[in-house]
Amino acid sequence: MRSQVVIVGGGFGGLYAAKALRRAPVRVTIVDRTNHHVFQPLLYQVATAGLSAIDIGEPIRRVLRRQVNATVLLADVTGIDLDGHRVDLASGGILEYDYLIVAAGAGHSYFGHDDWAEHAPGLKTIEDALEIRRRILLAFERAELADDPAERTHLLTFVVLGAGPTGAELAGAIAELARHALRADFRRITPGDARIVLVEGGDRMLSSYPASLSTKAQRQLERLGVEVRTGEMVTGIDGRGVDTSADRIEAATVLWAAGVAASPLGASLGTPLDATGRVLVEPDLTLPGHPEVSVVGDLAAVTQDGAPVPGVAPAAMQMGRHASRNIERALDELPTEPFRYVDRGSMATLGRSSAIATIGGLRLSGFPAWAAWLLVHIVFLIGFRNRIVVLFEWAKAYLTYGRSARLILFRESED
Amino acid sequence: MRSQVVIVGGGFGGLYAAKALRRAPVRVTIVDRTNHHVFQPLLYQVATAGLSAIDIGEPIRRVLRRQVNATVLLADVTGIDLDGHRVDLASGGILEYDYLIVAAGAGHSYFGHDDWAEHAPGLKTIEDALEIRRRILLAFERAELADDPAERTHLLTFVVLGAGPTGAELAGAIAELARHALRADFRRITPGDARIVLVEGGDRMLSSYPASLSTKAQRQLERLGVEVRTGEMVTGIDGRGVDTSADRIEAATVLWAAGVAASPLGASLGTPLDATGRVLVEPDLTLPGHPEVSVVGDLAAVTQDGAPVPGVAPAAMQMGRHASRNIERALDELPTEPFRYVDRGSMATLGRSSAIATIGGLRLSGFPAWAAWLLVHIVFLIGFRNRIVVLFEWAKAYLTYGRSARLILFRESED
Repeated sequence: MRSQVVIVGGGFGGLYAAKALRRAPVRVTIVDRTNHHVFQPLLYQVATAGLSAIDIGEPIRRVLRRQVNATVLLADVTGIDLDGHRVDLASGGILEYDYLIVAAGAGHSYFGHDDWAEHAPGLKTIEDALEIRRRILLAFERAELADDPAERTHLLTFVVLGAGPTGAELAGAIAELARHALRADFRRITPGDARIVLVEGGDRMLSSYPASLSTKAQRQLERLGVEVRTGEMVTGIDGRGVDTSADRIEAATVLWAAGVAASPLGASLGTPLDATGRVLVEPDLTLPGHPEVSVVGDLAAVTQDGAPVPGVAPAAMQMGRHASRNIERALDELPTEPFRYVDRGSMATLGRSSAIATIGGLRLSGFPAWAAWLLVHIVFLIGFRNRIVVLFEWAKAYLTYGRSARLILFRESED
Repeated sequence: MRSQVVIVGGGFGGLYAAKALRRAPVRVTIVDRTNHHVFQPLLYQVATAGLSAIDIGEPIRRVLRRQVNATVLLADVTGIDLDGHRVDLASGGILEYDYLIVAAGAGHSYFGHDDWAEHAPGLKTIEDALEIRRRILLAFERAELADDPAERTHLLTFVVLGAGPTGAELAGAIAELARHALRADFRRITPGDARIVLVEGGDRMLSSYPASLSTKAQRQLERLGVEVRTGEMVTGIDGRGVDTSADRIEAATVLWAAGVAASPLGASLGTPLDATGRVLVEPDLTLPGHPEVSVVGDLAAVTQDGAPVPGVAPAAMQMGRHASRNIERALDELPTEPFRYVDRGSMATLGRSSAIATIGGLRLSGFPAWAAWLLVHIVFLIGFRNRIVVLFEWAKAYLTYGRSARLILFRESED
C-alpha cells in the first residue's frame, strides 16, 4: 500500500508541496478551509479594486486536477494527533497519514487588542480583500451622500497601520484610486481630496529593505499624496479613528497591516514556538521528535545565517518543495537534507511605475523596479488561468489609470 | 433653475432612462441600493461559475461618469411622497423632484411561503448568484467529503423549481458544470452522476415561447441529462428536499425560479396594482393622477394588444427611454406619447450550442439559436468594460467546457 501524505493548507507552501509529489509513489490529500489557492502578493490589488477575486484565486482542485495521486478536500482541520498519526476534520472525518506537512500559514495579530479587528480589518484572504474594498468604496459613496463637510472629511480619511510591503502597497493603491480612477465619477465630492495616512511604529517604512530604498519608497508614496508617519505607535482604534503615540487621526476607514500571527494549529502541536507563534523546526523542516511531520511556510520559524527566513511566497514555495523532496528521500531510505532558502530578491510596488526592488546585489527603484515587479508577477501567475486577463487589466489600468473591479457586494442594506 | 429628475433604480429601466436624458436641460439623480448595474440575462452564468461577478456588474457611477448632468447615489429609498414631490432615503436625506421615474424592479415571490426562501434561493442580484454558486459548489465539495453513499446521492441532487428562462438556463448550466467542467476534478465522487431535476407547474417549460420550441428545449435539456418534469406543483420545501404534487425529491440544493414579485415600493405609491404587485400605469407609463411620475421596467404593468409586456431587459430599456422622452416633451410643453413595446425577439440558452430563439417570425433552436444568443448578448454588453473578457471566457469555455469562476467565498467556517 502506498504511503499517505496529508498536507494541511493550500497556500504557496502546501500547494507546492503537493505539486512536488506528483511523481512520488504516494497518495496525497490536501486539506484547506477554502476551496481556492490565493496569489497573496496581489491581494492588495483586489482590496483596492484593481483586480477581481477570480483574477488571483484558483480552486485548489482545479490546479491539481491532472495530478491523479492528489485528493483535495474542503474542510476545517480541528486537531492533529501526532501519536495517532491522524488529522481530525470538523466534518467528523479523519485523515490518517504516514507523512504530514503542516502549511497552515498565518493570520493577523492585533497584539492583544482583538477588539481592534472590527475597526481595522487586515488583509490575508480574498474575503478580507473584498471587505476592505467594500469599506473603501463605501466611504466614497457615503461622502457623496453626506451634507456635513466635517463628516465628508472624516469619510475621506484613510489610515493604513503598518508600513511593511502590504501597508505600503495598500496606501499607494488607495491614493491612486482616489486621485485617478475615481476622479470623474463623483459630483458632490472631489475624491482627490482624500487624505491617506500611513502609520509606522518603526523608524522607517519597509524596514526589511536597505535604508536607501526605504527613503526612496517614502518619497514615491509622498509624491502620490500619501502622508507617511514613522516612529508613531498605535495606542487605540475605535469606530471613528486611530490614536497614536503622537496624535489622534479621525478616519472612517482604518486598515491593519501591522502584525501577523501564526495559525493556532502550530501551537496545538505542542512543540516549542517562537515569539510570534511560529513552530521551531529542525534544519530539515521537520518537527522536533517527529521526523514524519514537516512544517512549512509562514507557520515555520526557520533561521538562516542568523536571520529569520522571511514570510514571503518564494520562501513558502521553496519550503513546500523541500519537505516533499525529503519525504521522497525517506521513502528511498535516504537521510533528509537541511533546508536552505535561496533569496532571489524582493519587491514592493507603490503605484503606477513606482516600486522598489532588491534583486541579488541590485537595488532598483521607480520605473525599473516597477517593470521588474510586473515581469516577476506575470511569470509567477503561471498556472493561473487568469494571466492573460490580469495582463489585459493591467495594460488597460496603466493606460487609463482605471480600476475596474469596483463592485460593492454584501453591503448591509440598513447602512 | 433646471428641472430635477429623480430615478429610483439602476437596472435596465432606470439606467436607460438616465442615459436618455444626457442632453436634456435637467439635473438627473439616480438612486440605487447597490453601487452596480447588473446585466441580468447573464446572472445564471455567475450562479453556475461560468462568469465572475465583475463580468456582468458595472458601477452605475462609472457607466454615467461622463454624463455631467447625472448624480449617482448609493442609498435605500424608504418612501416616496407623491404630494410633496420628494423621495426619502434611509440615510436621512431627501431628494426633491420635478419628475420621478420609478424603476425599482422585482424580487422573488414564494407565493406566501416565505419560509421557503432560505432553502431555495432565487436569482435576482449578484449576491443571489454568488450564494447559488456557493451552494452548488459546496454540494460537490461535501459529497467528496461524505462517506455515506446515501448522503452523497442527496448532496449530488439539484432541483430547480420553475422552468421559465431562468430555471431552464440554470438547469442546463448545472448539468454542463457537473458533466464537463468538474469531471476531472474529484477523486471520490463522479460529478457526472449528479441528478438535475427541473420542476414546472405548468404543462410545458418556457411557456412564453411557441409550443414547438418548448418541446425542442425540453429535448435539448434532456440530452444534457436534465430530468424535466412538467405539470408538477411544489407543495413544500425543507432543508432536505422538495415535495411536489406528484413526488418527494431528496436534494441538498434547491433553487427557486418559479415566481417574481414587484418591488414593495410599487404598493407604497397607493395606486392600483395588478395581481403580482406591479403598478398599473397610463399608456404613457405615468402614474394615474400623477403625470410627473413614471413607472418603468418590471415594476410597471403594461398591456399591449391584449397581452402583458414581458418582464425582460429590452422592454425595461424601451420603457426607460420612453419615460425620459416624455419628460423632454413635457419640458417642451408637448403632450406625452403612449408607449409601444417593440418585440425584437427572445431567446433562452440551455447549454453549449443549445438554445431556442424567436426573432421576428423566425423560430430557431439548437446551434443557430445559440449563435444568435451569443451575438445579441455580446452586442448588448456594449458599455460594459468586460465585453472582451467575457468573449474570451466564452471562447475558452466553448473550447474546453471549462467553467472557471469557481471560487467559494463567504463560506461559514463552521460548516
